[in-house]
Amino acid sequence: MTIEVGIIGATGYTGSELTRILTQHNQIDLSMITSRSFAGKKISDVHPYLEGICDQKLSNPSIDDIKKLDVVFLALPHGVSMKFVKKIGLNGPRIIDLSGDFRLKNKNTYEQWYEMNHEFPAALDSAVYGLPELFRKDIADAQLVANPGCYPTSTILALAPALNQDFLDVSSISVDSKSGVTGAGAKPSETTHFPRANEDFRAYKVGKHRHTPEIEEILTENSGKEINVLFTPHLVPLNRGILTTVYAKSKNKINKEELLDAYNSFYETEPFVRVRKNPPNVQSVRGSNYCDVFPVKIDRTNQIVLLSAIDNLVKGAAGQAVQNMNIMLDFNEKQGISHIPLSP
Amino acid sequence: MTIEVGIIGATGYTGSELTRILTQHNQIDLSMITSRSFAGKKISDVHPYLEGICDQKLSNPSIDDIKKLDVVFLALPHGVSMKFVKKIGLNGPRIIDLSGDFRLKNKNTYEQWYEMNHEFPAALDSAVYGLPELFRKDIADAQLVANPGCYPTSTILALAPALNQDFLDVSSISVDSKSGVTGAGAKPSETTHFPRANEDFRAYKVGKHRHTPEIEEILTENSGKEINVLFTPHLVPLNRGILTTVYAKSKNKINKEELLDAYNSFYETEPFVRVRKNPPNVQSVRGSNYCDVFPVKIDRTNQIVLLSAIDNLVKGAAGQAVQNMNIMLDFNEKQGISHIPLSP
Amino acid sequence: MTIEVGIIGATGYTGSELTRILTQHNQIDLSMITSRSFAGKKISDVHPYLEGICDQKLSNPSIDDIKKLDVVFLALPHGVSMKFVKKIGLNGPRIIDLSGDFRLKNKNTYEQWYEMNHEFPAALDSAVYGLPELFRKDIADAQLVANPGCYPTSTILALAPALNQDFLDVSSISVDSKSGVTGAGAKPSETTHFPRANEDFRAYKVGKHRHTPEIEEILTENSGKEINVLFTPHLVPLNRGILTTVYAKSKNKINKEELLDAYNSFYETEPFVRVRKNPPNVQSVRGSNYCDVFPVKIDRTNQIVLLSAIDNLVKGAAGQAVQNMNIMLDFNEKQGISHIPLSP
Amino acid sequence: MTIEVGIIGATGYTGSELTRILTQHNQIDLSMITSRSFAGKKISDVHPYLEGICDQKLSNPSIDDIKKLDVVFLALPHGVSMKFVKKIGLNGPRIIDLSGDFRLKNKNTYEQWYEMNHEFPAALDSAVYGLPELFRKDIADAQLVANPGCYPTSTILALAPALNQDFLDVSSISVDSKSGVTGAGAKPSETTHFPRANEDFRAYKVGKHRHTPEIEEILTENSGKEINVLFTPHLVPLNRGILTTVYAKSKNKINKEELLDAYNSFYETEPFVRVRKNPPNVQSVRGSNYCDVFPVKIDRTNQIVLLSAIDNLVKGAAGQAVQNMNIMLDFNEKQGISHIPLSP
Repeated sequence: MTIEVGIIGATGYTGSELTRILTQHNQIDLSMITSRSFAGKKISDVHPYLEGICDQKLSNPSIDDIKKLDVVFLALPHGVSMKFVKKIGLNGPRIIDLSGDFRLKNKNTYEQWYEMNHEFPAALDSAVYGLPELFRKDIADAQLVANPGCYPTSTILALAPALNQDFLDVSSISVDSKSGVTGAGAKPSETTHFPRANEDFRAYKVGKHRHTPEIEEILTENSGKEINVLFTPHLVPLNRGILTTVYAKSKNKINKEELLDAYNSFYETEPFVRVRKNPPNVQSVRGSNYCDVFPVKIDRTNQIVLLSAIDNLVKGAAGQAVQNMNIMLDFNEKQGISHIPLSP
Repeated sequence: MTIEVGIIGATGYTGSELTRILTQHNQIDLSMITSRSFAGKKISDVHPYLEGICDQKLSNPSIDDIKKLDVVFLALPHGVSMKFVKKIGLNGPRIIDLSGDFRLKNKNTYEQWYEMNHEFPAALDSAVYGLPELFRKDIADAQLVANPGCYPTSTILALAPALNQDFLDVSSISVDSKSGVTGAGAKPSETTHFPRANEDFRAYKVGKHRHTPEIEEILTENSGKEINVLFTPHLVPLNRGILTTVYAKSKNKINKEELLDAYNSFYETEPFVRVRKNPPNVQSVRGSNYCDVFPVKIDRTNQIVLLSAIDNLVKGAAGQAVQNMNIMLDFNEKQGISHIPLSP
Repeated sequence: MTIEVGIIGATGYTGSELTRILTQHNQIDLSMITSRSFAGKKISDVHPYLEGICDQKLSNPSIDDIKKLDVVFLALPHGVSMKFVKKIGLNGPRIIDLSGDFRLKNKNTYEQWYEMNHEFPAALDSAVYGLPELFRKDIADAQLVANPGCYPTSTILALAPALNQDFLDVSSISVDSKSGVTGAGAKPSETTHFPRANEDFRAYKVGKHRHTPEIEEILTENSGKEINVLFTPHLVPLNRGILTTVYAKSKNKINKEELLDAYNSFYETEPFVRVRKNPPNVQSVRGSNYCDVFPVKIDRTNQIVLLSAIDNLVKGAAGQAVQNMNIMLDFNEKQGISHIPLSP
Repeated sequence: MTIEVGIIGATGYTGSELTRILTQHNQIDLSMITSRSFAGKKISDVHPYLEGICDQKLSNPSIDDIKKLDVVFLALPHGVSMKFVKKIGLNGPRIIDLSGDFRLKNKNTYEQWYEMNHEFPAALDSAVYGLPELFRKDIADAQLVANPGCYPTSTILALAPALNQDFLDVSSISVDSKSGVTGAGAKPSETTHFPRANEDFRAYKVGKHRHTPEIEEILTENSGKEINVLFTPHLVPLNRGILTTVYAKSKNKINKEELLDAYNSFYETEPFVRVRKNPPNVQSVRGSNYCDVFPVKIDRTNQIVLLSAIDNLVKGAAGQAVQNMNIMLDFNEKQGISHIPLSP
């Protein structure tokens, strides 16, 4: 029996990256790719790199058509996504939502940070946060998976083992993240105009980015301790990649080796997390589903620095979404996402 | 029976790209990767992006060990490569040489442009130029394949159909090529120092680049007409990609459609050449084995402009080498090299 | 007596570059900077790099106010600029127009290439093409200067000496230009979206760019020969700079030295043209008003290659406009534009 | 009376930037530029952008010749610089040393972090740390100025006002700095090879960089409190610029406005520090001597984030050195360094 899969919103960066990956996935049939703006065109007319590889037509299907699928990926803006989930419902196709709409458990927190009403709060409870390294079992059975944000993926994977071992003074966590420009999406803007982003580097939304409560909720849930973080994103003049540097005071007198051992042990069986021996870099994960992590203890100041690198469009979005699908459908978890990083 | 394959010189850009590709090739066994400088180390120590993917040790084998292989890729500098071919001989493993040592038929031309003696001229005659679109049949039976240069690949594929149809005034061909910086190799130099190459653009070796006679010999052989070209390479501040713009006077009064038809017809059955409807760009072929071509007739000045785009490390080197191996071993020609371009 | 100067349209790249230059010009008073969109704001609110340097308010003045100025720079889109020139008239302030509206002498040519009616054709005849190296005397007395396009500046300065000496077969001129992304203006678009322009290289408007007739008219006027060129622009992933590579058959049997001598002699007294001994590069002129040129004869194919490099926003726009103003007002021609290139 | 000035080591990035600046300084005579490797060549042969601007010959003078100068800039590697200072002595020309050799007061600290013996410890005491915003008066009278490192300049200027007001919990300071690639110097290396640095982002020397004790000593001296910092540098794929993000717990319940006021008041009369209203960016200071700072209080987590941006070659090296010279010679402090940032 073929698994019928659809991508709702296939022309943005997340959607086209899903297309790139699912086109070569052996166990599913990518039977629907949609776009309101480009319906009727071939996706290879919108993204010429796909010519001869995926020349499928973009459609603008009814909800009933979408409901016939087995798995639906929603690659839509937040606010739009929740409307689709509500219409599709929770007893039809299994849904992997790549927006921020179902990542927070608390409706009020959502409404405060996203500055809009949540139209389908009833689904918040049953939605499973799609970070396989922490929630693999729940994902397997989920009807609705909230695929993690790119910054939270890199931050949580950097912090989880240290918090799990209670190594950190949780009152002092600062997260300094640096993202390539695809993180800002496919739509041109002042900030992403080439001459402005190129040869520039800046921080933005200091302490105010929407990924902050997502990081806090998941780490709190996972560690059993109330976790607050100061999160500062920066824009790097490159296309793909997030490097996150986390700072915290060390709680106990652990040494470098104990710290490294904790990470090696935590991620020992993970197919997509590599604990490195040196600071990671974004080029070494580009185009792949890897998250490279590197913990280090600085004895002079009794601080711990946790570093992680991902490709924001793969492990930070489309790749992780397919990893979740593989888990939900009991496929080999690496099916379709075993791309070797493209470097240099 | 397993096909045993080796890469001699696996740590340069061409060699590591061969490793990236052959690691996921289903029909061969990559049983030897060599490096004089890094022998004993794992290739993933030299190229961290390969960690967990290819942790094979680099060796420095004897010629006798190399001779036991079925296929040998030589990813060595010119001058060094010819010594290896001579030692391996032409009755052992089949050889795919990625250097310039066996691309020219004429020993004197080689010695003039490469400014060194050719130490194995006896092999020049039997070497087959490994451009499948022109020489597929000869490649199938070749003992020694001279894998084309990156600039010649993009130039010849842009020009061949037009020359084949006798569309061009052959006295007026100018080739303006632009290459990303990986084309200069993995070894740091003044020219490739980041602050110098970044935010810069320059021409180099105007009319004097070694790929000139390669382009001329192959086009002359293929078209039956004496072809001379002025070839000017430029350095573009990006990692991967060559865009070539060829200028020539139109010989006859052909129109746009006739020109396009000739290209569509010439490349109709080619798995890796895409005739585009718009000027090609290097991002749309990055990481893939595609060559995108686009011919256009400018009636105002009765000139023809031929554009092509490749990834210099894939179709311009490692990918084409594997394509040649597939042909030599009667595999599916796309085996191991069907990567979808990574864009953006 | 102070010279009162205004910039109409001060917030685009050309306008803000004029502001950068004129702020430090010792002999004029920058008394008006305008913007329809940002009127009332300080220019340093729009361009934060100007804070503390130029905190002047942007205005939206009446034509009568503009008429009180001594010199007006129009940094407006074509089509808009001609309306302003018409309203200001040709007996008020001296006008330096940086758009394409008054560069062509022939109204029909304008209307064909710019696809709109020309609303002030009466001014076409009296407008002087503001390329000091060719038209310095006319500029000195001009009421209306049409400041050259960026591509034509680099192309004409590369070609003029060779055409002047009748070195070229004029039936075979191909111009291959490569521009940084600021050449596309300050307004975000698909083409200039960072992830798309970065790590990409492409040709556009092959044989169809509006700068083509400008190049042809000026070279025809200057050389006395009917000149047609095939002009192909390309987009380079860097902010500032144009490198132009011109190809032509050599007419006579000149040698390298004669060619170089002709260039040295032609530009001997020019303050802003440097005849180089090696191929020029855009980084070596960045932020400055220099045009670096380099001619070379290739004997093998009897072709001539002419290279030039400029900063498209300085010698290709704002710097040259100020150079023209200096000539018109009999100032030292280098006043305010003697910036040393910023490299690296 | 003319002031005779020399640059020892004029061909590296710091030295050539000094040349760029001093060539247009009105009150001194740049009478000596030296280079051991290129002695006898013109500096414009080494740096073609200087052709026609500074065609002075590089020399390899004796110490006696150097001693005849009024002011000497040492743009040499650490370790080499101290030998020159020792030979020149402290009763000849006034010396501005751009290396790290005289920035630390404590010989042992130097030897521990720089891993070499200090050959002229006697001069450590009298050397003045050349950060005008903190030590202007001492600089005026100094015989030997130790010009600050690039990272320390950006870090200290970000932290000083907050420490001065005792706003920070000093046990929790983390400094996350990001530098363009010119910070690594002009010499090609693996790390700065274009294909490797481009489209990459990485941390390096986490907690181990030599600028750490420099930051700590100066902040301790200036604030009167023992200051320790965790300092983590990162490499950004751009040429010029450092952005520093400092994290610390807030000590008291100050609000945003109090914080901003403290900065405005501290830097009120400073010609080269701009307190911004939004997060700063490196493009807005490129090519200029400005340091842009921006403090922000995050109430949620009671943390303070301090941001600063400089051009590492100007305010981070050559520009600040000339600022120091201007102070030492009682010139207008902005003489020769009032370049407007080059943006975009």
